Amino acid sequence: MTKSEYNTVQDEQAEEAGEWKRKLSLILSYSSKLSASSGLSNILRLIADETKEILNAGRCSVYLLDREKHKLYSWVSHGLDKRQIRFSATRGLAGATVSTGETINIKDAYNDPRFNPEFDMRTGYRTRSVLCMPLVNQFGETLGVFQVLNKKNGVFSTQDEEVLGLLSQQASAAVENSMLYDELKKSFTSFINTLAQAIDARDPMTSGHSTRVSSYSQLIAEQMDYSSEEMEVLNYAALLHDLGKIGVKEAILTKPGQLEPEEQEHIQTHAAITRKILEQIYFQHEFRDIPKIASAHHENLDGTGYPEGLKGEEIPEIARIIAVADVFDAITYKRHYREPMPFEKVIGIIVSDSGKKFDPVCVDAFLNLNIYELLKIMTDETDVSISEEAEEIFEGVTIKQFISLMGNNSSPVLQEFVKYYPAGCT
Amino acid sequence: MTKSEYNTVQDEQAEEAGEWKRKLSLILSYSSKLSASSGLSNILRLIADETKEILNAGRCSVYLLDREKHKLYSWVSHGLDKRQIRFSATRGLAGATVSTGETINIKDAYNDPRFNPEFDMRTGYRTRSVLCMPLVNQFGETLGVFQVLNKKNGVFSTQDEEVLGLLSQQASAAVENSMLYDELKKSFTSFINTLAQAIDARDPMTSGHSTRVSSYSQLIAEQMDYSSEEMEVLNYAALLHDLGKIGVKEAILTKPGQLEPEEQEHIQTHAAITRKILEQIYFQHEFRDIPKIASAHHENLDGTGYPEGLKGEEIPEIARIIAVADVFDAITYKRHYREPMPFEKVIGIIVSDSGKKFDPVCVDAFLNLNIYELLKIMTDETDVSISEEAEEIFEGVTIKQFISLMGNNSSPVLQEFVKYYPAGCT
Repeated sequence: MTKSEYNTVQDEQAEEAGEWKRKLSLILSYSSKLSASSGLSNILRLIADETKEILNAGRCSVYLLDREKHKLYSWVSHGLDKRQIRFSATRGLAGATVSTGETINIKDAYNDPRFNPEFDMRTGYRTRSVLCMPLVNQFGETLGVFQVLNKKNGVFSTQDEEVLGLLSQQASAAVENSMLYDELKKSFTSFINTLAQAIDARDPMTSGHSTRVSSYSQLIAEQMDYSSEEMEVLNYAALLHDLGKIGVKEAILTKPGQLEPEEQEHIQTHAAITRKILEQIYFQHEFRDIPKIASAHHENLDGTGYPEGLKGEEIPEIARIIAVADVFDAITYKRHYREPMPFEKVIGIIVSDSGKKFDPVCVDAFLNLNIYELLKIMTDETDVSISEEAEEIFEGVTIKQFISLMGNNSSPVLQEFVKYYPAGCT
Repeated sequence: MTKSEYNTVQDEQAEEAGEWKRKLSLILSYSSKLSASSGLSNILRLIADETKEILNAGRCSVYLLDREKHKLYSWVSHGLDKRQIRFSATRGLAGATVSTGETINIKDAYNDPRFNPEFDMRTGYRTRSVLCMPLVNQFGETLGVFQVLNKKNGVFSTQDEEVLGLLSQQASAAVENSMLYDELKKSFTSFINTLAQAIDARDPMTSGHSTRVSSYSQLIAEQMDYSSEEMEVLNYAALLHDLGKIGVKEAILTKPGQLEPEEQEHIQTHAAITRKILEQIYFQHEFRDIPKIASAHHENLDGTGYPEGLKGEEIPEIARIIAVADVFDAITYKRHYREPMPFEKVIGIIVSDSGKKFDPVCVDAFLNLNIYELLKIMTDETDVSISEEAEEIFEGVTIKQFISLMGNNSSPVLQEFVKYYPAGCT
């Protein structure tokens, strides 16, 4: 063996070691980024980006399989922007991978009868080489398909297949973990929602109240630039604010006409009961203040509220938002002791209590709400549905602007509004 | 360079490539096992086992940090069996790692003043080399500590530190994911529990009913060798079986004395309402039958029950278990229309309805329950607490055996029993 021959062998060995090191570090970095991500969309986006990078490819898509409908849907697909596509789980190369459970590695898509050129036609892309591999969980169930397109400078090697196999193994666990968490969260949220509805329904007149209060509160909080985490706390607290009504006597809850002072007092116990019940629940860290927040929706800024008589900043800000939403919903709906109020009076009450009962910041955010958004919630679960023209007529009109139109009976905005709010404007 | 020199260099290169390949495959296999595991205990056990293996060490412990109490607790600790140990997060090498956030790599523990030899003394182990590294999440928060002991044939190298760093990175994400999931689950379960209690409490006489029914049902299901997954479904279904009472009129729910037929009918609507409410909830795959199960607790084996009049196998098995537990709880407690029954009569009712209302398999499992276990649930949340001698007196006595003792007034078992069950035996 000559010196140059030795060198060649040595170089190859070094190159192999180097290549393994490079892959190790890439895959490990991928794997730890993956574990650190949360939210299915983020995870799938990361998987697609990193796979494209590690495999030196032009594009990567991850399709998830909806087993019940036997459809594949794209969560992340390079070159498809944010549009989600769905197609039968028997179509194209991805479909073939699902059907056979086998990896497909081809040089030229257009020479393969299974290839579906529709996406290329739609997006103007030119698919050449394709590597398609099923995403399988630890029980051997197919979760979806990896589709990697257009290897740069060549075609996908068997080594690429091996690497994609490793990536796929890591990905499937992350995808499955994330789906499990999302499912549990969805279940938890829907449980709280359903419960709130069941409690509201004890009095047919308050049916849907807590759901609407949550929706109004979310609109207000959006104006106040709440993060998605704060929004989640607000949603739960708003849905649960009347949970304590479970402990209020039905006869008083549904009594027609004005309540006696002692009946009024009994009804007011619901806020304290809300707290007592919620305090028995184990809430995770970020939700730990929910009992305090949910039970403070009848506290007034000036300290005249209940159950604690808290003042100003002592009242959690989310409770100050819910307080406005709660009153708005109560006075725009019929109650046992009164009819819904004309809209001008509704807003008048909220504005005149700003700084007394209500936090002026929350009232101001409320006044900036869009009338159309508001009406959508107000008419939800009623027989009325908002026409398409209404959306145009109300476009960009806030409560503030709407109020300034009052008195102008020829305003199309006012004329349209009374179609959906029978109590009228003035 | 001589041929042998070339060979040496070449061998070293090959060895390095081989070593990286070996590590890559070990770490990747670790990483995918990790992602595929669920349950914090399983995950931590896997981390400890694999770390010990990959690092060629004698033992590995993973301690988690309780930030509020500033304590470290062992979930998995080789050589400590199943005992969990807790100690101040300032003690020993693990404590020093938490305090400084730095890795400790020492040759001989007994030469280091920070080392706490207590565990060695307790377990008879001899610690020599130690590698201690913090377990840090992606926000830089310390979750716990890795402690690897006694490198085989030597001491821990800086390469070992690097590898442990990689393992730790993978582990922290798995630990954090698992903790998040467990927390959400805990929160969900406690929510359902609290809600069930709030609904039972609408009628003070049924206070605690659903929780007890769930506990009895679990005891019966244990006899029937239920898996932990089935047990979870059973727990939720039992806790929620009377959810529909939220829609039953309070006046009827709490009416003293016998109910009129139409009142009886109104009360019976609760089973259908339970189903209606639960069907609005999004349940994950394994919990999908809960609405059907929870609402079938008044179905009878012979088809004479409600709301559907299901027969035999048409009634989900878990509902057949809950049916026995539900009746047992109802007749061992005071109701508005009657006193609790003597125990012989209680069992007589259940046995005589076996094969008619109740599934004989569930009744048989029920009769095999331990009297002591039963009394613990029956006296839960009462002023009575079971004495320590009672546990001995009742040891191994099942309901079946207990019944055969009836009539023998001198039996210490019967004499002890009436202390906790005022309605007596006969």
